[in-house]
Amino acid sequence: MRRQVPFDKRIVDETIEQLGVPPVKCSIREQKRLVDLLEKKLGVEYIRMEFGIPGLKTDKTAVDAEMEALSGGVISSQYPPFDGNPALKKATADFVKKFLGIQVTPECCVPTVGAMQGGFLAQAVVGRMDAQRPVILFLDPGFPVNKIQNRFLGLKSDAIDFYNKRGSVLVDAVESRFQKGDIGGILYSNPNNPTWITFSEDELKGLGEVMTRYDGIAIEDLAYFGMDFREGYEKPDLPPYPPTIARYTDNYILLISSSKIFSYAGQRIGLAVLSPKLFRWESESLEPFFLTKNAAYAFIHGGIYCTTAGVPQGPQRGLTALLEKANQGDWDYLDVLKTYQDNARLMKKVFLENGFQIVYHEMDGTLRDGFYFTYTYPGLGSNALAREELYYGFSGLSLEKTGAVDAQGFRACVSKVSKDDVETLNYRLQRFHEDHG
Amino acid sequence: MRRQVPFDKRIVDETIEQLGVPPVKCSIREQKRLVDLLEKKLGVEYIRMEFGIPGLKTDKTAVDAEMEALSGGVISSQYPPFDGNPALKKATADFVKKFLGIQVTPECCVPTVGAMQGGFLAQAVVGRMDAQRPVILFLDPGFPVNKIQNRFLGLKSDAIDFYNKRGSVLVDAVESRFQKGDIGGILYSNPNNPTWITFSEDELKGLGEVMTRYDGIAIEDLAYFGMDFREGYEKPDLPPYPPTIARYTDNYILLISSSKIFSYAGQRIGLAVLSPKLFRWESESLEPFFLTKNAAYAFIHGGIYCTTAGVPQGPQRGLTALLEKANQGDWDYLDVLKTYQDNARLMKKVFLENGFQIVYHEMDGTLRDGFYFTYTYPGLGSNALAREELYYGFSGLSLEKTGAVDAQGFRACVSKVSKDDVETLNYRLQRFHEDHG
Repeated sequence: MRRQVPFDKRIVDETIEQLGVPPVKCSIREQKRLVDLLEKKLGVEYIRMEFGIPGLKTDKTAVDAEMEALSGGVISSQYPPFDGNPALKKATADFVKKFLGIQVTPECCVPTVGAMQGGFLAQAVVGRMDAQRPVILFLDPGFPVNKIQNRFLGLKSDAIDFYNKRGSVLVDAVESRFQKGDIGGILYSNPNNPTWITFSEDELKGLGEVMTRYDGIAIEDLAYFGMDFREGYEKPDLPPYPPTIARYTDNYILLISSSKIFSYAGQRIGLAVLSPKLFRWESESLEPFFLTKNAAYAFIHGGIYCTTAGVPQGPQRGLTALLEKANQGDWDYLDVLKTYQDNARLMKKVFLENGFQIVYHEMDGTLRDGFYFTYTYPGLGSNALAREELYYGFSGLSLEKTGAVDAQGFRACVSKVSKDDVETLNYRLQRFHEDHG
Repeated sequence: MRRQVPFDKRIVDETIEQLGVPPVKCSIREQKRLVDLLEKKLGVEYIRMEFGIPGLKTDKTAVDAEMEALSGGVISSQYPPFDGNPALKKATADFVKKFLGIQVTPECCVPTVGAMQGGFLAQAVVGRMDAQRPVILFLDPGFPVNKIQNRFLGLKSDAIDFYNKRGSVLVDAVESRFQKGDIGGILYSNPNNPTWITFSEDELKGLGEVMTRYDGIAIEDLAYFGMDFREGYEKPDLPPYPPTIARYTDNYILLISSSKIFSYAGQRIGLAVLSPKLFRWESESLEPFFLTKNAAYAFIHGGIYCTTAGVPQGPQRGLTALLEKANQGDWDYLDVLKTYQDNARLMKKVFLENGFQIVYHEMDGTLRDGFYFTYTYPGLGSNALAREELYYGFSGLSLEKTGAVDAQGFRACVSKVSKDDVETLNYRLQRFHEDHG
């Protein structure tokens, strides 16, 4: 039995009232709670696109490696090195060389408790390199928790919305913001969460030159490493490589998450790649916080040590095995993720056919198919759409919560939507369009 | 062949020169590096007492539970709840009730990535509850990393050495320090690392009353939970219970590590027990840092979320199984740890027979046998002893590095010393005593 939409608007409105946050203002957690409650009250299933969580299983390679490591009870009893197990550091350096085209030593590769810890410590170091430059400049929209980290650390932040600033316009905007003299570095994700745009090599070259010119440090969040699925990313040691600022400046910290590319979110392990220069870069401003002037040691001994004393042994072994398997070159680790690409293609089609528009796209108007896309409905502001979509049985994340200021709309995550769901989505969007077109 | 001591003093001196840190000033890591190097150069094994790492294997219960959880690849792909898995929260509340005699709801029990993360976030919250009171008062000597955390967080610290301040003298000293009006809370470990003294119920009652009177919060580090091995601690639901300030004030955060009591250091999981009052306690001062006024939410959503986004799933399952097994009452989880007690008894005997003295002891002059003890040699200052002990083949941690100011000496950790080693230790201490007595 197909449930008619719109659902009972009175119940939706009452539930919104009850939780007390207008849908356009809902954080991921608040939106999740709201829709959980609506599903229960209405006895329906929503098309859930609000949270960005993996929809796949972890590859058996990781699980087997963890099990082998734990059996015997010895490794689980021993503190890990603060800078990571040597095998993982080496596998990371190899992976970065083979799949990103960047050459660093294993020393530069530091596992973290999720890329979350990497982002936290990266901001701590970058924001404290120079007491006069405590501002992290976010290229927005972005991952909301990075701003919570910034606040936790007592730093400052500013942001540039790249909606109508791409190419040299973006680079110029960043440079002119640097000229005020209070910016320690920039933070952005590539591919971008929430919009799935990807900064081009030209943009990254320009941004990298700004970093070098102003002693800024780029924190590049590669949470969706390789997941814009261009032809050839799956082949080790051969171009094309995913775009990265590491090709254009020595001032960088790359954050690689295992949550999405390896569906390993539950074990909370990520990788930080600190540029070699950070191991030589000393600043008096770091010492009061980290007991060292050295930027890389501040991250490791002043940061990882005193927050978690390293990364759990089991996950380190699991991730090592995954990277080593990918490095060998006979496993296309990106292949299984193409289900996200397929979903995105189907879902975007359905949205576009029913009068919706993609909000953020590349300069040429296209957008690759991947983990996220953004949508809006012409003539309806975000505030109205946030409520209306709940009447019609689908749920995204308000872009307002991700720092978008120059554009309105919602982020859709494709990971929890099955092929069957797309049919339901199509029906609901059709009805929506009939009623609002 | 027994190697004669003293070893070649010239080589020892050269090696110290080479590393550039006088032994009395060595941190744990520096001392480890120094002794590693000496062992290599001299071709000998030292009696290693400088680091406090577990010497036992993890119980199979944990390993089996992790493996069961990971098989299938689903749990490892799913983000854990930020406040911990419900089963672990419940098992912790039960454990605390049964083995500490403290009643809290599962909500109050929050897993952390090692007690290290718990101590980090506890200081973040306690030091920011009131902008006028950013000082954490350490009861010293203590775990050196807590002070590194304090610096990372940009807080302030002060310390009281309890060497000649015990009982009401200690309580009065803490109270008079609170009267200055800048202290947010206190931090101490019980049993104490490095001295293995245990604050008495009377002392904790006095300290608890000071917390209540001055709106201070006690951060009580129970890293060595139950490991002073009093008769009866192994029995659930029956006194005696380990001493805790939680019986005497509503203002507390307890930190329980799994590293030592469950030999689970490699998987980096600990537990924070936030007092129920912290879930009701609101402060405007928290909001700029944590986006919430609520102290407990600041710890969880403002803290755990933005530092690691929760604790890895595997270790959560493993620790749940260990706690549940202990809670059932037919497993004496402390029994296997008594090897530390045995070691301490033998080692202390050998030290005392050869002219050494215990530095920190209880008010009645005794000291229980456990994971650590402190030693000194009359007539030799710490500076001299730090070098001399390296000539004679044994190595402790300088108490200077743990905040001791009123007394000199070294911490010995017993975990890596075997019964055979005690014979060697005896020989070396005898020779030391002959040469210095």
